Amino acid sequence: MSKPAFLGIDWGTTNRRVHVMGTDGSLLATQVDDRGVLSLTREQFPVEIAALRDRFGDLAIIAAGMVGSARGWVEVPYLACPVTLSDLASRLHWVEPGRTAIVPGVAIADPARPEVMRGEEVQILGALQAGLVPPDALLCQPGTHCKWATLSRGALTGFCTAMTGELFALLRRHSLLSGLLDGPVEPGADFDAGLALAVKGAPLGRLFGERAATLLGLRQPAQVAARVSGLLIGGDVAEQALAPRQPVHLLADGGLARLYAAAIATAGGVVHPVSSQAAFLAGISSIWSMV
Amino acid sequence: MSKPAFLGIDWGTTNRRVHVMGTDGSLLATQVDDRGVLSLTREQFPVEIAALRDRFGDLAIIAAGMVGSARGWVEVPYLACPVTLSDLASRLHWVEPGRTAIVPGVAIADPARPEVMRGEEVQILGALQAGLVPPDALLCQPGTHCKWATLSRGALTGFCTAMTGELFALLRRHSLLSGLLDGPVEPGADFDAGLALAVKGAPLGRLFGERAATLLGLRQPAQVAARVSGLLIGGDVAEQALAPRQPVHLLADGGLARLYAAAIATAGGVVHPVSSQAAFLAGISSIWSMV
Repeated sequence: MSKPAFLGIDWGTTNRRVHVMGTDGSLLATQVDDRGVLSLTREQFPVEIAALRDRFGDLAIIAAGMVGSARGWVEVPYLACPVTLSDLASRLHWVEPGRTAIVPGVAIADPARPEVMRGEEVQILGALQAGLVPPDALLCQPGTHCKWATLSRGALTGFCTAMTGELFALLRRHSLLSGLLDGPVEPGADFDAGLALAVKGAPLGRLFGERAATLLGLRQPAQVAARVSGLLIGGDVAEQALAPRQPVHLLADGGLARLYAAAIATAGGVVHPVSSQAAFLAGISSIWSMV
Repeated sequence: MSKPAFLGIDWGTTNRRVHVMGTDGSLLATQVDDRGVLSLTREQFPVEIAALRDRFGDLAIIAAGMVGSARGWVEVPYLACPVTLSDLASRLHWVEPGRTAIVPGVAIADPARPEVMRGEEVQILGALQAGLVPPDALLCQPGTHCKWATLSRGALTGFCTAMTGELFALLRRHSLLSGLLDGPVEPGADFDAGLALAVKGAPLGRLFGERAATLLGLRQPAQVAARVSGLLIGGDVAEQALAPRQPVHLLADGGLARLYAAAIATAGGVVHPVSSQAAFLAGISSIWSMV
């Protein structure tokens, strides 16, 4: 049996995933909890790190994600596109040399199309490293902020972000549509109807109509959530202007993977599913092997 | 001097405007307060009505707006497009016959493009009645929910709604961009930059970039509110696909009028400003003259 080699942490805004990686590259254990960066003060990070070593052993730690943001433990400068895994490995920020490192994020400092990411770069380049995606590929990472990333000749060369998940959450919690968006959101006729509306353009101009339709008795309130989700996800996918049968490598799990797969297929793309956890593990292990 | 003839009330979600109208059609007084329908229970409406008669005299009352919604005093069925002022007058809902009436709203019960309005119809048809807009016209009423309405041969024949103002408020209060949207929102270089982005399509895909730009030091946080406003209002106007030099009759006052005027002009339209209060007074007076 493999012995523990290091801890690879995907340390996001809300959640934290701690992976115990073996000397042979295998995954020995994973702890998922809600100790995301927003739940911690700056002073608590060293305490958290010590607690992880108490639990899992006195191992090296490599952490990626919002832990390296201004709101996290240490603000680590972004690397500029194009970026490879070896760029990430050689530009790790060592909080304790040889012991505890934070992976830098990636930025595009173009005033016409500025972008930033923290954490997704490990998944994207890890998927490439593991052979889960080819060296030239379009990747989609759905979530609160959905990333669309381009790999060219084995480097991350560009990406853009849509606040699709956040917008749905804002509408559900705080808007005129609150109370209409608690129904099920699954692939099916209602979600497809939303996708069809999105293809016509102007998803924002269609939101009010979802309320009007229920006021007028044209639809059941339980249909609205799936329709609005289809409208927003369909609009997100439409913005990518996919070529016919363009391959899209979808780094997602669970319900969101099914919804984006349906939306991408409707837009004419061909979905290649990739496990986002497998991609992260491949990326963080590869970085570890290079330091 | 003219004597009071009736009270015309624009009774909205948040605010209430009570106009004392003279026997010669002139405006004698206006009371604006925050007794919108969301601040009142159903039982409080008769009390409010009695209080208004105590203050302004034992006059007939005609009220328009959300007062006629399910959340208001009495739910008054919508009229179907096309609608004229005489339709509104002949289909008033009399809470007390001859004494207290509520103007019906207007709906489009088309499953492909369902729409509802309550209150805007009095402004739109009032503007027509007063000669402020021609019998064939495109009207824009900015606000929390921006209405775009079409008059054809003197009737309200169609309209659509964009949740532009509500989306800006959601983003400012509850989103990732909260804290970046408290700056000034005025016509100018930043607003124009947002308009220019919106013309390229996909305003939702540009929101995250506004945060990225400040993280990367490419822009000052104080610029973001005007840029995002330009993005959303520009997207709203772009959806109308205005013909070159198409006249747009803008029923608005204050800052929102200036922003929409700039956005419509940038999109190639020609703005004709109309006072929304003058339009409402003309509409409610005309309804009164017909009952």
